[in-house]
Amino acid sequence: MELRGKPVADQITAQVKQDVQALQEKGVWPKLTIIRVGEKPDDLSYERVACSRMQQCGILTEEIALAADCSQETFIAALQEKNNDPSVHGILLLRPLPPALSGMEEMLAPQKDVDCATATALGRMFAEDPGAFAPCTAQAVMEMLAYYEVPLRGMDVTVIGASLVVGKPLSELLTTADATVTTCHLQTRDVAKHTRQADIVISAAGCPGLIQPDMLRRGVVVIDVGINVRADGSICGDANFLSCEQVASKITPVPGGVGSVTTSVLAKHVVQAAWQNSFPTK
Amino acid sequence: MELRGKPVADQITAQVKQDVQALQEKGVWPKLTIIRVGEKPDDLSYERVACSRMQQCGILTEEIALAADCSQETFIAALQEKNNDPSVHGILLLRPLPPALSGMEEMLAPQKDVDCATATALGRMFAEDPGAFAPCTAQAVMEMLAYYEVPLRGMDVTVIGASLVVGKPLSELLTTADATVTTCHLQTRDVAKHTRQADIVISAAGCPGLIQPDMLRRGVVVIDVGINVRADGSICGDANFLSCEQVASKITPVPGGVGSVTTSVLAKHVVQAAWQNSFPTK
Repeated sequence: MELRGKPVADQITAQVKQDVQALQEKGVWPKLTIIRVGEKPDDLSYERVACSRMQQCGILTEEIALAADCSQETFIAALQEKNNDPSVHGILLLRPLPPALSGMEEMLAPQKDVDCATATALGRMFAEDPGAFAPCTAQAVMEMLAYYEVPLRGMDVTVIGASLVVGKPLSELLTTADATVTTCHLQTRDVAKHTRQADIVISAAGCPGLIQPDMLRRGVVVIDVGINVRADGSICGDANFLSCEQVASKITPVPGGVGSVTTSVLAKHVVQAAWQNSFPTK
Repeated sequence: MELRGKPVADQITAQVKQDVQALQEKGVWPKLTIIRVGEKPDDLSYERVACSRMQQCGILTEEIALAADCSQETFIAALQEKNNDPSVHGILLLRPLPPALSGMEEMLAPQKDVDCATATALGRMFAEDPGAFAPCTAQAVMEMLAYYEVPLRGMDVTVIGASLVVGKPLSELLTTADATVTTCHLQTRDVAKHTRQADIVISAAGCPGLIQPDMLRRGVVVIDVGINVRADGSICGDANFLSCEQVASKITPVPGGVGSVTTSVLAKHVVQAAWQNSFPTK
């Protein structure tokens, strides 16, 4: 069975739209500010998709484009202005920032940090704070698993990838959901040993062809978070989809899988931030 | 081989003493404030051991005892006073706090949070900030492994326990050290499956007799973080020491293992906080 992202994103989007209306009735117009440094094609493309999703949800967006060589002072001034602007509920920093601005994401106000760019937001997620925002892609995986009713409690889950943006926070979310999680990465001696005994395999390695059917137990659920660009410009995941589909009970395609859910999670976080920032006692 | 904590603690303590002298020569007298609410025997005993270690290192201590039923206002006032007192470099909150004060630990200034009580400190550790303080017990395990030259890179490590104080941060520290970590907990279906294939088993479950020799592969390293009190008042770990010692290549005793290292890590963190708070550019 192919687990497509669109119905998941649609369901989240429908709920977000309702929440936006409820906020508007209370006089709050949810708004996301996107701050981009430079003109990286990946950033531009994600920004376009994110804006289009916010529009679909009725969330206002504001795009701030800074020069690729902007100074720390310029960056901080732009960020602080939005930190202090009560009409802005969420701020998305397109990352990674250029090396000259490395670490500057920590200046983002935690209550507006809808994609978990700061250590404080990461810590709140880790501490299982219900008001915390997980990184959107990690949360998108959790939304996929929930929508397709894949049980987690007591399941053996192998996560491949230990980045701060996906692998590590995802391992944490899964552990909190009572799965028994093994986190593999570049230094793992034998990835196949760990995937073969898993009930669920989640690959966030960014390595095309990494997951082959002989690494999977029959009936496994495969969630593919890899987004890789082939030489011909086409997109593929970490798993060899056609062959892995023969072994897996459920598998997400790339494109059309987890990646399609990310911006709806972002919209959900903006609305949640708008609630939390506008009605702090709620 | 029995891995005792004392030589590890001695080595850390000797280094801390040197650091304290170096700080004193710069006019800084490192100081730890311990805040205790109520008179729980565990708290009193840890406080006694911690004060004795600080004294051994030349670190000043101040003990603040609040009534078990103290109000949030009283607690916050006491904490804020120490947050704002530049002569105090580290603050240890004896935890867990009473239910009425639940969540109040977040008021602790992150730069003085030497035992990782706040979400911010946890996030900094998670984000691999070199200035972050891990929870002392989790760090004590890392110090044991380093002292006894147990390699971590590429090793399969099974951690039993997913608490915020030990299991989860320890899994994170081990992953950052390039181990392949599986985190087990109460919902894990088959703990033995995960321990049998591990190169290193770390138990922080608080469950006497949990680790039996048939759950271990020959030559494994066993780190026992459990501290359990038997009916007769004696202390034991999670592993059945005498029988597991026959199978393991290295194993820590309880008492006399990881627990003996914790306060020396606390002292190390106080000195590090004193450096960081007194000479921010360093």
